[in-house]
This record gives sequence, structure tokens and C-alpha cells, in this order.
Amino acid sequence: MGQVQTRMEDALKRLLPAPDIAPGRLHQSMRYAVLGGGKRVRPLLCFAAGEISSAPAERLEFAAAAVEMIHAYSLIHDDLPCMDDDVLRRGKPTCHIEYDEATALLAGDSLQALAFQVLAENAVAPDASTQLRMLCTLAQAAGSRGMAGGQAIDLFSVGKALALEELEFMHIHKTGALIRAAVLLGALCGKALDAAQLGRVVHFAHCVGLAFQVVDDVLDCEASTATLGKTAGKDLASNKPTYVSALGVQRSKEWAESLRVEARDAVTGFGGEADRLRQVADFIVLRKF
Amino acid sequence: MGQVQTRMEDALKRLLPAPDIAPGRLHQSMRYAVLGGGKRVRPLLCFAAGEISSAPAERLEFAAAAVEMIHAYSLIHDDLPCMDDDVLRRGKPTCHIEYDEATALLAGDSLQALAFQVLAENAVAPDASTQLRMLCTLAQAAGSRGMAGGQAIDLFSVGKALALEELEFMHIHKTGALIRAAVLLGALCGKALDAAQLGRVVHFAHCVGLAFQVVDDVLDCEASTATLGKTAGKDLASNKPTYVSALGVQRSKEWAESLRVEARDAVTGFGGEADRLRQVADFIVLRKF
Repeated sequence: MGQVQTRMEDALKRLLPAPDIAPGRLHQSMRYAVLGGGKRVRPLLCFAAGEISSAPAERLEFAAAAVEMIHAYSLIHDDLPCMDDDVLRRGKPTCHIEYDEATALLAGDSLQALAFQVLAENAVAPDASTQLRMLCTLAQAAGSRGMAGGQAIDLFSVGKALALEELEFMHIHKTGALIRAAVLLGALCGKALDAAQLGRVVHFAHCVGLAFQVVDDVLDCEASTATLGKTAGKDLASNKPTYVSALGVQRSKEWAESLRVEARDAVTGFGGEADRLRQVADFIVLRKF
Repeated sequence: MGQVQTRMEDALKRLLPAPDIAPGRLHQSMRYAVLGGGKRVRPLLCFAAGEISSAPAERLEFAAAAVEMIHAYSLIHDDLPCMDDDVLRRGKPTCHIEYDEATALLAGDSLQALAFQVLAENAVAPDASTQLRMLCTLAQAAGSRGMAGGQAIDLFSVGKALALEELEFMHIHKTGALIRAAVLLGALCGKALDAAQLGRVVHFAHCVGLAFQVVDDVLDCEASTATLGKTAGKDLASNKPTYVSALGVQRSKEWAESLRVEARDAVTGFGGEADRLRQVADFIVLRKF
């Protein structure tokens, strides 16, 4: 996993516009928000899924970078004063604190465009029509019926007690959609898989995506700001519905564990080629930050 | 032109998520910002360029809708309090006034994703590799070395007196990039053109894009808020460098006229197939709103 993280850092450095290209301040803010931090969970999932289809690392790098750029843009916008209004991210001041709100807004906007550019202009797939499918997958995952829609539901839910299925609906969009896209894009980078195989990969991603959020909610409640690199206890303070508020800590932990098992089971049929997917599922559920 | 505008309104209505699909408020805000207004200059240019390559209208509809979604998202974000802080757009309250800032932010984000989705999932080109080229063109035009970059330069220029070439650099990015993309996408929807033909189309778009901005600056200074449907006199009030502040009204008008002539000349070689391009160039320069 450390190798993939290092590789990703290099790829992102290369793919982001250099800090001295005009407009310099905008490009510096994009690099600030993307580089030097983050667990790179989505790239890890993308690379792990690529093992299923024997995808070359050069292709996976582009696909994972595109997904990570979408993720980074969503964090920048999510931290803005009109959204979560947060000052700390990955142990550093958030983008609008380090720069300013307008620059942060445009940095997020530019990163979204760059993600699609990276996926459209590089050799990421065995053929052009698969590449179009990847672009479509990422666009759907990022948009109003994916991640951005999930953020809207999150926003409208502040102060409400959501039923468990409503909470799940929100997270399937807010974090789940991009995690599913990361896994699907990784799988599509390599040799063609049939619909049943892709179905298993998507089932894995669905479980891992939900588990990721359940664990996030537990950590927000149990870990410190220093460990997380972002403001801890934020959900409770901002009166947001979470798995912890819906289920309590203990049952949340049990549920994350059962999702981990379900995710691992979903890819049993792939044998050793799914080893890395199983490892990343373990990492997501057992992490302490 | 009225036919294209009606056709576009129908296409955009169809391509935007229905207002009752969850999250409803987000989808309503996206429809609010895109539908029922605007001159549709970019779709007009896209359709006109499609005549050069005999592109079918069904393809042009998707391409023009994608460009118009990028344009609409940029207006939503541009009107936010941290950017131009404007309350009026196309004769209606701006998106964040009608909804709220967070919803407007996410509506813009979602429209950008939807633009790429529309271009990736529909039959817009004669083949998949041309379609990828169109996606790449739109992503570059929207990003930090295109439109979003131009907005950043605009932002950093408030209160500064820019040299004419700096002003031009800003507008070649801020409005020019997306106008060039509209024309190029329209041309790419049809039969393959050679590099020289595409070069002439891009030259046309470059002139028309600059002329559009020069005329915009003159109108901001000379027309009323009622006629424009947006706050007039805004540039002067916010101390922004414009063509009017750099050249004066009279020389700005003369320059717009010379750009119109240069644009028309650029497409002379296409004969009657460029009639519509010439008409749209006239419309852009001679418009009163």
C-alpha cells in the first residue's frame, strides 16, 4: 500500500499544473489541496481492483489520479464556510483558510475539470469505448445522483434524526458513489470482465463504501483531532445524523465488521487476484485514523 | 436562431434530472439556473459550426447542451458572495439568492459533472476517439488553463490597471476558452475536417470570443439593468479592468467591429456552409443586450 501511495503522489505531482504556470496562485492552491496528505483510499481501491483484470499500473495511475482529484475537489468545497465551514484538513489549514474562499472555489472547480481531462486524454483503457464508459462512470459518481447529491442530502439533514435507511441512502451517494467508481475504474483498466464479474466487484465496493462511512463516524466520535488531521467531534457538534447517533458505537462497530466480511465474501470467486482488494477492505475497517 | 434556442431549451429540459428526483431541491436549483433564460450564444455557435461538417442536429444538441451546462455552472459560481456577489442574473434572482449558497455551490458542481456525463454517454461523434477528443476539449476549456483560470485572473485583477495584452490574456481564458470549445465541438460532431479547416474554425472562434467580451464591456457601461437582465455598471462599481476602461467606448466599439470582420474572413473558404457562423458573429457584435 505504501508503494501505491508513493506512486500516486508522484503521478499527481506530474498531472497537476506546475505552480509557476499562470494563474500561479490557482495552480498552487490546487497542488496544496491534493498533494502531501490523505490516506489515498480511493487510489488504493482502484489499484487493488486493477489486479482482478491484470490492468497495467500506467493506466491505473491515471484512473486513480482522476478519482482522487474528484475527491480532493469535494473536500475543498465541503470545507467552505457555506458548507461545513472547517479550518483543518489532513493536519493543515483548509484550502480557503490557506488561500481565500474564491481561490478555493475555483481550485475545486478546476480539479473537477482536470479529473475528466486526465481520463479523456490519456491511454487508460484497452479501447476508446471502454474509456468513454469510464468517463461516464466517473461523471455519474461525481454528480447530483452521486457524490454531489449525497452532499446535498447531508446538508438538508442537519438537525434531523434520519432512519437508518435514509442515512444509508445519503452515504451510498456521498462517499459510496466515488468509492464504487474507484473500484469500477480500476477493474475497467485491464482485460474485459463479464457482467457477473463486474457485479461482484461493485458489490464489494458497495460494502466497503458503507463500511468506510460507518468507521468514519465512529472515529469522529472516538479519535482525537491530532490523530485524524481534521476536526474531531464535528458531527455531534454540528448536529449531523451519523451511524453512531443512529446505532450507538458498539453496534456501529459490529456493523462495520459485518460489512467487511460481506465485502471479502463478494470477491471470493476471484481467488488470489482479489487479495489486495481484501487487504484494502481490512485497512478501511481496521484503521485508527 | 430562434429554432436552435427552442430546440436547446427542450434538450436541456430533457437532459437535466427531473425536479422530483432526490435530492429534489438540488435538481430544482440546477433547472432554475439553466432553463428559461440566456441568449444561448454557445449553443448557437455550436450548431452554426456543425454546418461546416454537416453534423446531425441530434449530435449537436448533446454537444451544445454540455457546453451550456458548463457555462451555467460558471455563472452560478461567479455570482456567489465570495466571487462577484451578484443578486440578479437573466432577469431573475441568482441561484444562491433563490435557494441558498450551499445549494448553489452544489448545483454548479453537479452541472459540471453532468456536462461531461452528457458528452460521454450519448452518441455525439462519428467515432469513440473523436468523442474522447471532444471530452478533452471541453475539460481543457473549463479548467484552470481555460475558463476557471480566467476567472482566477479576473479575481486577482480587481483594482489593477491591466495592459491591453493582459486584459486579452484574461478574456481568452475567461470567456474565450468555452466559446472556442463550443465551435470546435460543433465542428467535430460531423464528418472529419482536416487540421487546416479546424484551424480556420478556431481562428473564427478566437475572434468571436474576444468580440463577445468587448461588446459585453461596452453594454455593461451603456445598457440598463432591465435590458441586460443582470446588474449594469457592475464592472466600474467593482473597479474591474475592462476594454472600456482600457480603450474607451468608441475605440472598444471599433475594435469589436474589426474582430467581427476578421471572424467572418476566417471562414470565407467554407462558402455558404459558414453562413450561420457569420450570422452568429453579427449577432454577437451587433446585439443590444
